[in-house]
Amino acid sequence: MRREQQKGGVSRRIFLAAGSIAAAAPALAADQTGRALGEGRRLYGERSVFEKSTRSFGASTLSVPTGSSRTPLQDLYGIITPSSLHFERHHSGVPTIDPAAHQLVIHGLAKQPLRLSMDDLRRFPSISRVHFIECAGNAGREHRGNPGPTAQLSHGLVSCSEWTGVLLRTLLDEVGVDPAASWVIAEGADSSRHVRSIPIAKALDDTIVAYGQNGEAIRPEQGYPLRLVVPGWEGNVNVKWLRRLQLANEPAMARDEASSYTDLMPNGKARHFTFEMEANSVITRPSGGQHLAHAGLYEISGIAWSGKGRIARVEVSTDEGRSWRDAELQGPVHSKALTRFRLPWRWDGAEVPLESRATDETHYVQPTREALIAARGMKEGPDGFNHYHGIKRWYVKASGEVLHA
Amino acid sequence: MRREQQKGGVSRRIFLAAGSIAAAAPALAADQTGRALGEGRRLYGERSVFEKSTRSFGASTLSVPTGSSRTPLQDLYGIITPSSLHFERHHSGVPTIDPAAHQLVIHGLAKQPLRLSMDDLRRFPSISRVHFIECAGNAGREHRGNPGPTAQLSHGLVSCSEWTGVLLRTLLDEVGVDPAASWVIAEGADSSRHVRSIPIAKALDDTIVAYGQNGEAIRPEQGYPLRLVVPGWEGNVNVKWLRRLQLANEPAMARDEASSYTDLMPNGKARHFTFEMEANSVITRPSGGQHLAHAGLYEISGIAWSGKGRIARVEVSTDEGRSWRDAELQGPVHSKALTRFRLPWRWDGAEVPLESRATDETHYVQPTREALIAARGMKEGPDGFNHYHGIKRWYVKASGEVLHA
Repeated sequence: MRREQQKGGVSRRIFLAAGSIAAAAPALAADQTGRALGEGRRLYGERSVFEKSTRSFGASTLSVPTGSSRTPLQDLYGIITPSSLHFERHHSGVPTIDPAAHQLVIHGLAKQPLRLSMDDLRRFPSISRVHFIECAGNAGREHRGNPGPTAQLSHGLVSCSEWTGVLLRTLLDEVGVDPAASWVIAEGADSSRHVRSIPIAKALDDTIVAYGQNGEAIRPEQGYPLRLVVPGWEGNVNVKWLRRLQLANEPAMARDEASSYTDLMPNGKARHFTFEMEANSVITRPSGGQHLAHAGLYEISGIAWSGKGRIARVEVSTDEGRSWRDAELQGPVHSKALTRFRLPWRWDGAEVPLESRATDETHYVQPTREALIAARGMKEGPDGFNHYHGIKRWYVKASGEVLHA
Repeated sequence: MRREQQKGGVSRRIFLAAGSIAAAAPALAADQTGRALGEGRRLYGERSVFEKSTRSFGASTLSVPTGSSRTPLQDLYGIITPSSLHFERHHSGVPTIDPAAHQLVIHGLAKQPLRLSMDDLRRFPSISRVHFIECAGNAGREHRGNPGPTAQLSHGLVSCSEWTGVLLRTLLDEVGVDPAASWVIAEGADSSRHVRSIPIAKALDDTIVAYGQNGEAIRPEQGYPLRLVVPGWEGNVNVKWLRRLQLANEPAMARDEASSYTDLMPNGKARHFTFEMEANSVITRPSGGQHLAHAGLYEISGIAWSGKGRIARVEVSTDEGRSWRDAELQGPVHSKALTRFRLPWRWDGAEVPLESRATDETHYVQPTREALIAARGMKEGPDGFNHYHGIKRWYVKASGEVLHA
């Protein structure tokens, strides 16, 4: 009972029924089940056969050129997304690239252009950083008013990894940037030659030319063997299968930054180069599709993130936003990374709405859907809604079912 | 040239040959290779077919009951070990456990014994923490004077994950610890019923009943669906396939803590309950089995860890320990976790020894092999040498080969 009254008055004791525990220990001691020798070793391990959680494919993205898959956020723990479950989005499938033949060319407004092999890249001073990557179109269906029935379907286009590689500024030091250069144009080796332009200030700040993801080589769907990680900026700027960086004095105005990946405003004009992802959060447990067996103590847990820096605060409301309680943040909180939040909560068995609100270190507060729509309207661009980050609400029904409406 | 003279006078510029780069961009623009559609999506992703690094099995551990496998440290980046490459050690193979049927019993000197399902466990307040786990016998061959030819063979019985679960103290609060209880006896559901005893102070400190590893369920080789994570303590105490915790007023004196996992001293007596792993480090790049193509700038990189807390400093020597230079530590530095260190280094093409020395936040300094042997002798226990953590040296030969001698 020592911990009663902690954390907003919610006792953390569960008061589980004891059952016939007194007899459990002798029963266990006599238990001869599981006495056969287990399985042997594997050179490269796999998850348990009982684990079935997977990425999901949308009905609208069934062809290779429109390929995307979503992370099952509701099944995950902590802040690292298993690489096998990292979301993906591509326009011409996942290329198969031999790293021994892959090269990165850095040219344009450079004093000494360079062509680098993967071995060359690994000789440069490296860094590892935990960052999220989020598709600009994540949660677009929430914007549209057709909320996702699970966290995977509502917010599954965000994932988080420990990325390892060379800071782009280290490579730009090596080539020597012409003072006239104001943009870096990045090109992928995928069939559709995805191209994005990045202002030189971001290139010289925290942008990474990454070859490692969660301890091993980057996965094929995330750009094997090389991708740009542009922390906090929309996913499509984090160019995968990176093969070329051109220093220039203007952006490329490529297909993927002039037609696609723009944000249509109420006045009919489109914002483009809206790089930064804003403060966002979603409760992943309990979340849509899950079920609470009975009233009692549970943990509310979820993820928050911001492209502007560190998450400073996450609040949880169980009364439609009239009052809010601070959740605990899992530390250390990384900049531009998923941040796990948790709050013990006692469910009384009645229907209740659950929602979370993130605030980042710049004091930006995640808005309601209504506030976001008041500012940005309901006009959809060529690739749908982008940069939606309104507060997400789940409903725990009296039956224990968790629904999105 | 701006960054010259940084970091101990080593220029970080590589001065790579330019080759025919001026012609590279037009050539790339005309390049029609890789223009076929790529691969489609996978529900659960896999690494590239070009990635071949695996765990290794020792010749002395080829049977299931003596099973172990080692992490390929020389191929990894950052501090997270991919779960598929996490080392393992078991005495009766890897059991296949259905989580829907698995239960944890907590009993003995408890006011209210408990039997918990996996669903029950997930209702308790949870935490996620990055910790290493290291086999007590890691680097035993270094002690023996038969140094490992690769980092995998010398130090591959250490790995690091983001673990998620419930603090054991939270569960002990729930059962109510009898003041007479001074030990917690943990039992696994593997066929050999691995048992270790843990002093109550550690159980109430940072010990975790863990169900998550790197974002998903714990892997079978690491104890699926439940293991004890006892931060900083030798691997075999981190009981896998956890099914029982008994509060007691004395240790179990089980086979695995009375016969095995003891340390034989020069006077013929054995230390037991030597739980804590001491400050250690190994350079993983360049390391044994790798090859430097030519003289020039490289990065020296490796991992350091301590069971006593945070790594405070890692130094690197290239002159057989006569002088040392501070490496950069990858932050944030976690307590009782692998810590990546890095140092830019210019190889002049001559034979050179490379070694690293870790210091932890308690000011404990990793000793030389000679100092360790002076204190602990050369007597080998029933399961070999334990708790070896002497400084490891690699030799870069004039040929560019990296060797262990």
